[in-house]
Amino acid sequence: MDFYKEFESKIIEVNKSLEKYIEEKECPQSTIYKAMNYSLSAGGKRIRPVMMLACSELVGGDTSSVMPFACALEMIHTYSLINDDLPCMDNDDLRRGKPTNHKVFGEAMAVLAGDALLNCAFETMLKNAEVSPNMTLAAMSEIAAASGTEGMIGGQVIDIESEGKTIDAVTLMTMHLHKTAALIMAASRVGALLGGGSREDLSSMEEFARYLGIAFQIKDDILDVTGNEETLGKKTGVDGLLEKSTFISIYGMEQSQNLLNDYTNKAIEVLSRYGEKAEFLIELSKFLLSREN
Amino acid sequence: MDFYKEFESKIIEVNKSLEKYIEEKECPQSTIYKAMNYSLSAGGKRIRPVMMLACSELVGGDTSSVMPFACALEMIHTYSLINDDLPCMDNDDLRRGKPTNHKVFGEAMAVLAGDALLNCAFETMLKNAEVSPNMTLAAMSEIAAASGTEGMIGGQVIDIESEGKTIDAVTLMTMHLHKTAALIMAASRVGALLGGGSREDLSSMEEFARYLGIAFQIKDDILDVTGNEETLGKKTGVDGLLEKSTFISIYGMEQSQNLLNDYTNKAIEVLSRYGEKAEFLIELSKFLLSREN
Repeated sequence: MDFYKEFESKIIEVNKSLEKYIEEKECPQSTIYKAMNYSLSAGGKRIRPVMMLACSELVGGDTSSVMPFACALEMIHTYSLINDDLPCMDNDDLRRGKPTNHKVFGEAMAVLAGDALLNCAFETMLKNAEVSPNMTLAAMSEIAAASGTEGMIGGQVIDIESEGKTIDAVTLMTMHLHKTAALIMAASRVGALLGGGSREDLSSMEEFARYLGIAFQIKDDILDVTGNEETLGKKTGVDGLLEKSTFISIYGMEQSQNLLNDYTNKAIEVLSRYGEKAEFLIELSKFLLSREN
Repeated sequence: MDFYKEFESKIIEVNKSLEKYIEEKECPQSTIYKAMNYSLSAGGKRIRPVMMLACSELVGGDTSSVMPFACALEMIHTYSLINDDLPCMDNDDLRRGKPTNHKVFGEAMAVLAGDALLNCAFETMLKNAEVSPNMTLAAMSEIAAASGTEGMIGGQVIDIESEGKTIDAVTLMTMHLHKTAALIMAASRVGALLGGGSREDLSSMEEFARYLGIAFQIKDDILDVTGNEETLGKKTGVDGLLEKSTFISIYGMEQSQNLLNDYTNKAIEVLSRYGEKAEFLIELSKFLLSREN
């Protein structure tokens, strides 16, 4: 398997579907579609939808059943980025090398674009699901829980309340299990669910994604210190400026690197029961470990 | 029928369910539940959930099937108020006689509380629906469409883009059909749907709510000029300060009063085919016409 070719082909399929699901049109509120698509098409790596597709394939599922849910997850991820960048949050001017949403469309429209993307995630699943009503509801429930107060939003709350404070390793881990890992875990669990996976498959996928989600965050923290602003497409050193506790501030750079390697290896280890079928997910894990943005 | 007694009893039932659906708990992100409940329990009139319950009863439905969807609509309405009050939107300090959400919890937490309420609306429907999966999906689809870019959010977009401009009557009407009437229409359509109403019932309920929704907005515009700040629980004269086009700025006070009466009468007329069974909805329409907040 040529990992990069396969990765690229999955990204292209996701992008095509996103364009289909959020069609721009001439109407009095046309700006909102422009604002939503601006952030949605800013060139993300589509990690979450690609993971969902791959986890479904791993257990024998097909792409078309998964796509509405995969794209919904990307919409939710994107809305969270628009919000994170707002002046009242991290106040970032640059994201993926482009001005942030509120810099282009103004703060009010950016808030609405965020709301609209979250709302549209649910509309997309409701309108386009091709699986049974029960399966649709089960997949939506997983995604709604992962993006809500017991998932991503809960993590953002801990993040905001931790600013300017020194937090301990338990709080840091709790924050990132919610803020970052929850959506990644939903991606792999829902993938396995829609693909017809067993209860054991769902557990394995959740365990895999928990390790990978934390590894992903450690890498983010490392890149905020060592990354190149141009390659990264956003400002570095932001965590320090906002007095945020990170894996680096708590564990130091060397131990963070070790944790990153450890968790990535543990994620890959979970996949061992799938043998060669897991090749894409293994390569994806390694790609995330060595990424520069 | 004692309208006020019936209204009060419906409000109490809605409030009980809202408390049940959003339980506060001790957890690292407990603040978000406080922030959500702060705005949710600020004493709204629960017009939308009460309408949904009443429209379901009108066609023979029961309360328990409707409640998760009724409360979801109130959560969506409440999140839209939190957002409307933000500094980047209308910048209001007071809502329902209490400091606005961002004044109490800070802007970042208020944005998250808004997101969380929208997300929780979907979680509430997914977790608590007692109707069939197909019916659950149909009701959720109506609500998601009404709150999204083709509904409420679309209206907010037109609102923001109209600030400081003189808009015409068509744009004003389009704005409020989206911003205000869409959720009210969803309340009555979903009520009829869950109650087992026919296609004709759904059309009638939609027509009724379209007139009532616009009447509701005209009354809001009137109260912004003539209302008493204490009774209203928020600042008056805000539309003028923000240079917003309103029914008053376009039609003048006298004609706006006439339109308010006309649309309320038209709403009530739609109900005539239901005879005495529509008494509560008729009284509710009259109550909304004469309300002082």
